[in-house]
Amino acid sequence: MVHSEKADGLQKPDKETEGYIFNHMMLRIKDPKKSLEFYSKVMGMRLVRKIDFPSMKFSLYFLGNLTDEEVNNLPKDTHERTAWTFKQKTMLELTHNWGSENDKNLKHHDGNSEPKGFGHIAFSVPDVYAACKRFEKYGIEFIKKPDDGSMKGLAFIKDPDGYWIEILNAEATAGLTK
Amino acid sequence: MVHSEKADGLQKPDKETEGYIFNHMMLRIKDPKKSLEFYSKVMGMRLVRKIDFPSMKFSLYFLGNLTDEEVNNLPKDTHERTAWTFKQKTMLELTHNWGSENDKNLKHHDGNSEPKGFGHIAFSVPDVYAACKRFEKYGIEFIKKPDDGSMKGLAFIKDPDGYWIEILNAEATAGLTK
Repeated sequence: MVHSEKADGLQKPDKETEGYIFNHMMLRIKDPKKSLEFYSKVMGMRLVRKIDFPSMKFSLYFLGNLTDEEVNNLPKDTHERTAWTFKQKTMLELTHNWGSENDKNLKHHDGNSEPKGFGHIAFSVPDVYAACKRFEKYGIEFIKKPDDGSMKGLAFIKDPDGYWIEILNAEATAGLTK
Repeated sequence: MVHSEKADGLQKPDKETEGYIFNHMMLRIKDPKKSLEFYSKVMGMRLVRKIDFPSMKFSLYFLGNLTDEEVNNLPKDTHERTAWTFKQKTMLELTHNWGSENDKNLKHHDGNSEPKGFGHIAFSVPDVYAACKRFEKYGIEFIKKPDDGSMKGLAFIKDPDGYWIEILNAEATAGLTK
């Protein structure tokens, strides 16, 4: 059990949940070219697996923050590589329905206007201010710059589909909360 | 670079992204008691940090799939424990706006009806069929049972807010895709 955190409803996991892993979360994207440039170059993620479903005309992209060494050690065999992907905690899955990049009417729901649901994804970075300077250089849209509001040192940006991304530093965030 | 995965837009991460970690993703929940019972007992997660914001009347719950040993080794100091939370890959963050459990009109958007966006979260488990027997025992709603459709061995269930959860086994999923 968690000793210092208490909450109504919290229970000891069933024994049978041993080996359960929170593996990924999925976001629909409009244009993989834009999203892959953003998540690789700007956010530092690597494409671990791309899986195409030609009969259903969609592709899945699984990304994670891997080091060069981890990327070099990825299984080369397709089956092993896919199995590796689905054993990690945690990947970002992007779903592209083919042709959606040409659909002028398509705009994905970011979950933060009514009806609300999903809120954001978050990246922990070594230096929020340095990261935000990079994002400014790339012309990335901000929802909150690190010095806006009372939560200093915490930023929110938008990805190419408008999904919210929190940019935080672990030590700084610990300093903001009790 | 990733050697065996190619895609338009994919780029080598900027050097400055070293240390960036995909830390968490956030879902709004209606009733923390129900969600915590579900994610702890049924899905095997542990509550690592609960952070209350009394002036803004909301609480954040950060959960992860930790072993007993990992839970026992969590920092006891609040600051250190919060910093630890925000250095992990990856946690599930649940946001509870106080009183929402009593709001009869509140229903969160699961992202899978129009307007679409977020799709699902996914748990990798040792045995999908065994996991689904457990879920049936708990009366959990299924979107797809493991033998429904062409993707055998892959299931989708709903969490207490109706968010979709994929239940997969890494090896079995690798066998389904190329």
